[in-house]
Amino acid sequence: MQNLRVTIWNEFVHERSNPAVARIYPHGLHATLANALSAQPGLSVRAATLHEPNQGLPPSVLESTDVLLWWGHAAHDAVSDELVAGIQQRVLAGMGLIVLHSGHFSKIFKRLMGTSCALRWREAGERERIWVVNPGHPIAAGIGDFIELEQSEMYGEPFGIPTPEELIFVSWFQGGEVFRGGCCWTRGSGRIFYFSPGHEAYPIYHHPAIQRVIANAVDWARPQGRVAEVPLHVPVEQAPEKITARGPSVHVEGGQLAH
Amino acid sequence: MQNLRVTIWNEFVHERSNPAVARIYPHGLHATLANALSAQPGLSVRAATLHEPNQGLPPSVLESTDVLLWWGHAAHDAVSDELVAGIQQRVLAGMGLIVLHSGHFSKIFKRLMGTSCALRWREAGERERIWVVNPGHPIAAGIGDFIELEQSEMYGEPFGIPTPEELIFVSWFQGGEVFRGGCCWTRGSGRIFYFSPGHEAYPIYHHPAIQRVIANAVDWARPQGRVAEVPLHVPVEQAPEKITARGPSVHVEGGQLAH
Amino acid sequence: MQNLRVTIWNEFVHERSNPAVARIYPHGLHATLANALSAQPGLSVRAATLHEPNQGLPPSVLESTDVLLWWGHAAHDAVSDELVAGIQQRVLAGMGLIVLHSGHFSKIFKRLMGTSCALRWREAGERERIWVVNPGHPIAAGIGDFIELEQSEMYGEPFGIPTPEELIFVSWFQGGEVFRGGCCWTRGSGRIFYFSPGHEAYPIYHHPAIQRVIANAVDWARPQGRVAEVPLHVPVEQAPEKITARGPSVHVEGGQLAH
Amino acid sequence: MQNLRVTIWNEFVHERSNPAVARIYPHGLHATLANALSAQPGLSVRAATLHEPNQGLPPSVLESTDVLLWWGHAAHDAVSDELVAGIQQRVLAGMGLIVLHSGHFSKIFKRLMGTSCALRWREAGERERIWVVNPGHPIAAGIGDFIELEQSEMYGEPFGIPTPEELIFVSWFQGGEVFRGGCCWTRGSGRIFYFSPGHEAYPIYHHPAIQRVIANAVDWARPQGRVAEVPLHVPVEQAPEKITARGPSVHVEGGQLAH
Repeated sequence: MQNLRVTIWNEFVHERSNPAVARIYPHGLHATLANALSAQPGLSVRAATLHEPNQGLPPSVLESTDVLLWWGHAAHDAVSDELVAGIQQRVLAGMGLIVLHSGHFSKIFKRLMGTSCALRWREAGERERIWVVNPGHPIAAGIGDFIELEQSEMYGEPFGIPTPEELIFVSWFQGGEVFRGGCCWTRGSGRIFYFSPGHEAYPIYHHPAIQRVIANAVDWARPQGRVAEVPLHVPVEQAPEKITARGPSVHVEGGQLAH
Repeated sequence: MQNLRVTIWNEFVHERSNPAVARIYPHGLHATLANALSAQPGLSVRAATLHEPNQGLPPSVLESTDVLLWWGHAAHDAVSDELVAGIQQRVLAGMGLIVLHSGHFSKIFKRLMGTSCALRWREAGERERIWVVNPGHPIAAGIGDFIELEQSEMYGEPFGIPTPEELIFVSWFQGGEVFRGGCCWTRGSGRIFYFSPGHEAYPIYHHPAIQRVIANAVDWARPQGRVAEVPLHVPVEQAPEKITARGPSVHVEGGQLAH
Repeated sequence: MQNLRVTIWNEFVHERSNPAVARIYPHGLHATLANALSAQPGLSVRAATLHEPNQGLPPSVLESTDVLLWWGHAAHDAVSDELVAGIQQRVLAGMGLIVLHSGHFSKIFKRLMGTSCALRWREAGERERIWVVNPGHPIAAGIGDFIELEQSEMYGEPFGIPTPEELIFVSWFQGGEVFRGGCCWTRGSGRIFYFSPGHEAYPIYHHPAIQRVIANAVDWARPQGRVAEVPLHVPVEQAPEKITARGPSVHVEGGQLAH
Repeated sequence: MQNLRVTIWNEFVHERSNPAVARIYPHGLHATLANALSAQPGLSVRAATLHEPNQGLPPSVLESTDVLLWWGHAAHDAVSDELVAGIQQRVLAGMGLIVLHSGHFSKIFKRLMGTSCALRWREAGERERIWVVNPGHPIAAGIGDFIELEQSEMYGEPFGIPTPEELIFVSWFQGGEVFRGGCCWTRGSGRIFYFSPGHEAYPIYHHPAIQRVIANAVDWARPQGRVAEVPLHVPVEQAPEKITARGPSVHVEGGQLAH
């Protein structure tokens, strides 16, 4: 069986500009995630960053990616609309997408959700406890009742997302809020998982249980079934049941007026 | 109680260019829908069309609309991106949206769904039977087992939409296809209903049962609850539980780095 | 318009056996809820308790109830299976059902959910903060960002329920847990809302915001559309499209072998 | 990796009493399904029937089954309530369940759904076309736009089920009806798939595409994650956050009053 091809995209800004972040992720948080995922059997892992050519995702990379991870925060607007459209097309065609932490406000996540993706937030280094609400789900495999992070950024409700098809994790915060921090959706033939932990000021992606969830999610998001259909005109003579056209028409010959 | 303020938007192209359509809808299909809805108590109904100033929906109209109906086909691309963004904001803030027939391919529907919204289609004047799959839903109130249209355009699966939160109607077509033609979603605080019947070459919006479904949908889509939140920074001293900030931070003073 | 007919069912055990509870609800918690709901226009409110004839719900009452509230804790097993079957039938036929607090473990809730309905719990009089995660939903109308209960019983995840169709509230607990405490489902033509607050040792049903949520839920759960279908044999000659029977059959004459 | 342990349960009534059925399935339809599934790598397949000891499913078999297929029609009532309870517990604990055709009216399916599971039906040997509405789903892998059955029993809407979490197939019938014939749910930690084709009077389980769907569903329904929690009392001193009990209590020492 061919390896699952995983690409980790990171804007890679704070690790180069903020010494506190650089101490935690000296080679970028994508490097930490790539190391963790590379320890899994059956994965081929690459990393890509914003300041590389084609913002790290030329068509050749995007086309050969089965599951894409996305981390962005300070530079959402710098991502080109063309790249966003390309990622969306790949997701609809079956590529998995894992959106991490502040990626909730990325162009690609907002594009796929259709909503504000807004949330309540506070950076106070407070305790977060990530509860498993769906213990039978494969993304929660190997995780106990909860994951505890001694220091985290608070993300709180209401979170401006469509109702998740499956809700896996809900977070408790020391300061008094809650958050739906692990959510699944399907869009077209692609699976999407949003996972809230990962503030760059704390060593969250070094945490084994967080790494385990992300590895589980990569496996869950692998392409399934086949590519969703493009729009398709069915000529009358190709209808599954024999019928004869009748009545007026607004469509010109050749079906040029698309639906 | 204040009347529900309904605006029917129609691109109003085919009724002016195609004689067969003009015979069915001499004043535009928006006029037929407006007449039907005006017969309902408690509604204030307006119509708007593409070629009016501000494409028919200046901010004053959009802000004073509780439920918007949308019909477009030939001129989807002519609708400005700015208007689409404005409608999306209104939906997220609670405005109901009823997307009709070929509106499945409108910019606003694709924006809110995040998917291709593509489908299979054929214009052969064939019979369609719209089955109620959710008889307890208010949008199906007053409708029997099915609605039969002697002539309709075929829309068939797969339909490139997110899984509907509620599925109300599934259509049978004489030529052998099926279609999820009545679907509900919530996005932000707004309710969205897609209803597939309404090809302009046939007098579908004159059909009493079709009018009844649309009137039911308008009532169902009225704004509920309150406006969804904008993103919100919670200063440490305003946390619901008393906490003290600790640890490193990547946020500049004043919370200018939005999430 | 006819009044909505609301029946509040309470097992009415602890209010008569536990002095601490009796002080909070001297006439039973159903009386407190009935007073609160009676203040709403358009409602006709009755109460019913376990030790009345027919366990409080003879067919005449059940048939004339539009929305049923259910509170039970110590005596779930005392409720007859026949009554449970009758309530289930009424819900499937369109009656609304509001299940309160420890009613999560009632026979009727488990019957309608098909799952364990189990949860984690602790009675320590700790603080609970009920966050609105769906501010646009009518059940959250008039509620701010959250409801705070200074003393509550902890209910925690994982909660053994099917994924809610709509999730309205998620609770934060002082002791460190979270809970999906406000959940909506549809079963047949009936709407179901589960709302977790209401431990009898604290005066929770005297809280105005809790009363508001319950009143909102009663309004939301009112019967919609029409009664769901009973199973129906369609004789060949009554098929919507003309067909002729062909091939072998396992069904005896008269369709006695039901599906 | 250990083989997936699959058990096919069949009531095995019509194959022994009806010559037309016996010609199609001389060894019972479970034998045909077992042959088909045994051709898949990684599966260990057993069959079980109603008239065997313990109705074919003694605890030792049930406990060692990863995915259970269920076909019943004439003898739903003969299945013991105790066995139904045992199957439900296994599903909630993670066992997959594939319910076939007339199994829609089995005790176990109604128990897990909580609804009527009723439908419209007609046995006329008419044509059925099973459309894929979710081509990206693994259960549809390897299937084209649709599967065509030249002779089938009609099952029609409304189908008395909870809204499926994922809808995979919708059927078109020659006589004019439609049906949601391929539906997914999760209950507890178990996955459930209902698949409508399979009337015993026609050789439907000999059809390669039908066999492929069932094999896909078996793979999809394999146990995921871990067993859902049983109800759990959390003593105050074991709360994740340090708290002190305060206020009145209705629970006796030792937590004997379950929730």
